[in-house]
Amino acid sequence: MEVIRVPGVMRQTAKGHLLRGRTIGFVPTMGALHRGHLSLVSRCREENDVAVVSIFVNPAQFGPSEDYQAYPRDVEGDMEKLRAEGVDVLFIPDVDGMYPEGFATYVEVEGLSERLCGAFRPGHFRGVATVVTKLLNIVRPTRAYFGLKDYQQAVIIRRLIADLDIDTEMVGCPTVREDDGLAMSSRNLYLSPAERKAATVIYRTLCQAEEALLSGGKGFAEVRSLMERGLAGEPLVKEVQYASLFDPWTLADISSMDANIYRGRTVLLAVAVVIGRARLIDNKLVEVPGVDQVRP
Amino acid sequence: MEVIRVPGVMRQTAKGHLLRGRTIGFVPTMGALHRGHLSLVSRCREENDVAVVSIFVNPAQFGPSEDYQAYPRDVEGDMEKLRAEGVDVLFIPDVDGMYPEGFATYVEVEGLSERLCGAFRPGHFRGVATVVTKLLNIVRPTRAYFGLKDYQQAVIIRRLIADLDIDTEMVGCPTVREDDGLAMSSRNLYLSPAERKAATVIYRTLCQAEEALLSGGKGFAEVRSLMERGLAGEPLVKEVQYASLFDPWTLADISSMDANIYRGRTVLLAVAVVIGRARLIDNKLVEVPGVDQVRP
Repeated sequence: MEVIRVPGVMRQTAKGHLLRGRTIGFVPTMGALHRGHLSLVSRCREENDVAVVSIFVNPAQFGPSEDYQAYPRDVEGDMEKLRAEGVDVLFIPDVDGMYPEGFATYVEVEGLSERLCGAFRPGHFRGVATVVTKLLNIVRPTRAYFGLKDYQQAVIIRRLIADLDIDTEMVGCPTVREDDGLAMSSRNLYLSPAERKAATVIYRTLCQAEEALLSGGKGFAEVRSLMERGLAGEPLVKEVQYASLFDPWTLADISSMDANIYRGRTVLLAVAVVIGRARLIDNKLVEVPGVDQVRP
Repeated sequence: MEVIRVPGVMRQTAKGHLLRGRTIGFVPTMGALHRGHLSLVSRCREENDVAVVSIFVNPAQFGPSEDYQAYPRDVEGDMEKLRAEGVDVLFIPDVDGMYPEGFATYVEVEGLSERLCGAFRPGHFRGVATVVTKLLNIVRPTRAYFGLKDYQQAVIIRRLIADLDIDTEMVGCPTVREDDGLAMSSRNLYLSPAERKAATVIYRTLCQAEEALLSGGKGFAEVRSLMERGLAGEPLVKEVQYASLFDPWTLADISSMDANIYRGRTVLLAVAVVIGRARLIDNKLVEVPGVDQVRP
């Protein structure tokens, strides 16, 4: 595994592969790799000639009161995992390499960025969009892999790739879960054993909401309050930032809409809660049954 | 000359050239081509294997009260000129191709964009930065050519190319002038004969300010008011938007600074005025003499 730390060197290396007609697959990460990341890496490895992974804890996507300093870092452990996965290139730039003095350019995806997590993390998706644009320009991947646990992020990145005419196919990959359903996240490391157990309420609540949608009879507003009550019922949940139904394309909150409008279509159930010092998110796509498909 | 109207086709064509190891030169324009544009095209032609020119009047860089509709368009005339210059590819996308429904992503170069013209044209440089990012991603040029009449634009584009890790060398080219010194601009077409004659005050004033700096003895504030008075003295100048001395790197207004700080360094003299219905800009770089170089 080649380890590259300088953006210009990474760009030249990628260009060399492209000029030889090779496809490049790319998994951008912030490190502290778990099985969720590795599922992306393994798919990236399978589908491309060259597999590139980046590790960069991007300061631009953390708010001043957020966990940039505390964010888990384990480069040695990560490198071992990536070598075992057969990754060809690890790109691990430092902050000065990515944001040199005088840096002033930001990418913003309007509308999509202000909803859900964006409302609670102002500037977060601007930081994400900027670093992803930079990384895609440096690595020039044929395909880039993103986990769908960060559903809003995936929608935003798909939009920016199309809007800025970036020559990369965005591949969204399913969320990987622990045995008890908790979505894999580097931030799960923040949880105490009691909090870790309490965190299972997130996926359980999503599944209950899905069930309510599939069995029909309940309006969207009812499903929304079912989710809110489910999460708030867990004493270790300090804050429910949002728990609602969204349009999976526009990310608009649709909880006040008539469920009939979405019959036969897909809705996004999405949740953000704070447990201990971890802000955790999760989501589920549900196909709302058509008029004659409501289960008995 | 190949004429391409669809961004995806342009991207594939450019990619084909790159994979064959050819260098691509690129001149982005808004059409209504004059000798200033053609000087860029000719240099682009000389320095690269493949010369690509784009014509796109970019709505995103015009304010609601600006001249987007009125902006001169002469595609037939332009094509004739570009064929004569030996251009290989003309890229001429339409607005829907560049900004399809749902478009939401914008590129912003902070700080540099709010000064000079930015203060009078809010959102202008955001529109410029966004369309240039798109065009560079579509055409993937080895070198891109920009006229230095739009000095602020050139500084902003140089910054965004560096910040977003775009693999293009930005080449700034000297302003081409009419015999009487007026900088070539598509907007000169807006001028009546009397206004056209009055517009010569712009370059004359820049030259007087340069002379004042070179002969020494005058402070920056004095040079600034000399410029302002020179322009305001022409009755057909309806508005002097700015006329001052700027740092050529940061674009900060330095007219209130001590001239000694810039001895032996370069300052930017820059001007924006309204004459008739034309907003005209021009500038001049001047090397301030060192302590012992003041001319007698």
